[in-house]
Amino acid sequence: MSLPSWAVAVITIGAAAILAVSIDYLISLLTRESFNPAGRNCFITGGSSGLGKALAEELVKGGADVCIVARRTEELEKAVKEIETYKKSPTQKVMFVSADVTSKQDMLRAFDTAEVKMGRNPDFVCCCAGASYPKFFLDSTLDEVDHLINLNYLGQAYAAHQAAFRMRDSKVENGKIVFVSSMLGILSFAGYATYSPTKYAIRGLADTLRNELKQYGIGVHIFFPGGIESPGFDTENLTKPEVTKAIEGANTPQTSKECAKSLMKGLHTGNYMIMTDFIGEILRAVSRGVSPSNNFILDSILSIIGQPIASGYAIYMDYLVKSLNKPKTK
Amino acid sequence: MSLPSWAVAVITIGAAAILAVSIDYLISLLTRESFNPAGRNCFITGGSSGLGKALAEELVKGGADVCIVARRTEELEKAVKEIETYKKSPTQKVMFVSADVTSKQDMLRAFDTAEVKMGRNPDFVCCCAGASYPKFFLDSTLDEVDHLINLNYLGQAYAAHQAAFRMRDSKVENGKIVFVSSMLGILSFAGYATYSPTKYAIRGLADTLRNELKQYGIGVHIFFPGGIESPGFDTENLTKPEVTKAIEGANTPQTSKECAKSLMKGLHTGNYMIMTDFIGEILRAVSRGVSPSNNFILDSILSIIGQPIASGYAIYMDYLVKSLNKPKTK
Repeated sequence: MSLPSWAVAVITIGAAAILAVSIDYLISLLTRESFNPAGRNCFITGGSSGLGKALAEELVKGGADVCIVARRTEELEKAVKEIETYKKSPTQKVMFVSADVTSKQDMLRAFDTAEVKMGRNPDFVCCCAGASYPKFFLDSTLDEVDHLINLNYLGQAYAAHQAAFRMRDSKVENGKIVFVSSMLGILSFAGYATYSPTKYAIRGLADTLRNELKQYGIGVHIFFPGGIESPGFDTENLTKPEVTKAIEGANTPQTSKECAKSLMKGLHTGNYMIMTDFIGEILRAVSRGVSPSNNFILDSILSIIGQPIASGYAIYMDYLVKSLNKPKTK
Repeated sequence: MSLPSWAVAVITIGAAAILAVSIDYLISLLTRESFNPAGRNCFITGGSSGLGKALAEELVKGGADVCIVARRTEELEKAVKEIETYKKSPTQKVMFVSADVTSKQDMLRAFDTAEVKMGRNPDFVCCCAGASYPKFFLDSTLDEVDHLINLNYLGQAYAAHQAAFRMRDSKVENGKIVFVSSMLGILSFAGYATYSPTKYAIRGLADTLRNELKQYGIGVHIFFPGGIESPGFDTENLTKPEVTKAIEGANTPQTSKECAKSLMKGLHTGNYMIMTDFIGEILRAVSRGVSPSNNFILDSILSIIGQPIASGYAIYMDYLVKSLNKPKTK
């Protein structure tokens, strides 16, 4: 006598579920390490302002050496002075290198210079450089499409390539590479055709390297902030279509300090996908796919709750965009 | 007397769930149109071989006019002859334009030439041009990273920009833009650092335009095929790391004909995210985020079943990559 095939399927799935939950839980207990900045050598692109600078301050506060990278020397000098005020000990180093993340040669030079200035290769690299120009696709030029893929995606890919090489070759312990995506790297809607694809691409790179760099013991994390209060955020609002604002709703931006604290908290917990608020966690749960859960049971519950919320939101955003068609608006 | 806040939350979520399910179901009944190729004017990049050519054949079989685009004239001429054999009527047009999708100027010229040759602007554009070179990230050059983002992402973005302009301005009815991503545009692992980000980026572009182009009545779909039997697939296997093959398991590639049929079926059903098999459907369900469901009830059930499968798979792929570290392999 043999079981019918549907019964085999149900039993297999049930067994897989129980096994996965138990293994996931055990592994997270055994392998997750809480993140401690003390003694680390950090390399932060986009480090002269916004999230990058706020993160540098948190890391220095925790006892790390930090090298920030951006283009403008004047802003870098000013940022270093501010970051230095967070030092716990006079031996901590805070340095800068001026470089353009969209240039492969410049990134190589930046890592070389940082190695000399800091006396060693970094064991923590976070890619914060990025920008956004919200506009309708048909109001954007293809040069803008090129520019944002260069700055937001290739800029992080170049830095990650150097980071991974150096962490592997100098046998750094517990090396960490942190990518900065965005909530708009998980969902997107009218107004973000030049931006969202670059942040989705970052997720693709992080998903690949999270798995691949395990062979060298390098940890990869990805951060999905919402809006961040910054000069960039104000510039964005100048070109942002009204319907984009309507879809986003009353989305109060975090300060860059709050945002950096959310990132630090996620690193501390050892999460792969790091969000800033509860809406973010629901979004993560309904879209994490094959990425590891932060907590399997909670994530599964959130993903069930999230299904109607996500589908409802898709219907709502489509309704808003379709209604553009009715009165003769531009 | 007022309810405690957790009760309000539960009631709100429950009500949202019921509302979303009902609205989603009604909307899908009312608005989904089955796709009929008859009389359509199709523009297909990567149309001289593989999926692009097979899709052209299916469309011509269904009564459409088709213009294929690729670089090599010789291959295009050969493909046109093969595609023509599927014509239902002698008045159907099958043409080609030789162009490089990675050049903005060339794409503009290709759409201009196609408009002249076909006598009108396309109402169906599918972007099939693409390539993959599976290798470890640290065995890839940054030029390879650049090349694949140009070919796989920018190539589709340029074509979509032209397509959307022309569909809007020539007031095409039921215009459709179809992006081609990959299963590796939803999940990724060791070996695909240059490829997956480009296919994730395509998803970001499709997610944005699906919503944004509703204001012009243009429909957007995204296709996520697995492996496709092709000369490209064989080349891939030459550089593909062993661990990548192990993670993929016994993944039998579809023929390009089967793959084109899966795409046609998805278009016919009116699905936004189009997959080729049951594993693909599970993957979609656990990662669709705020994209519309194909069937809300089924998708929700699949997403529950998919949680332990996806988490289990993440653990399995990490186990395989970590074990590379043990014996002294290259």
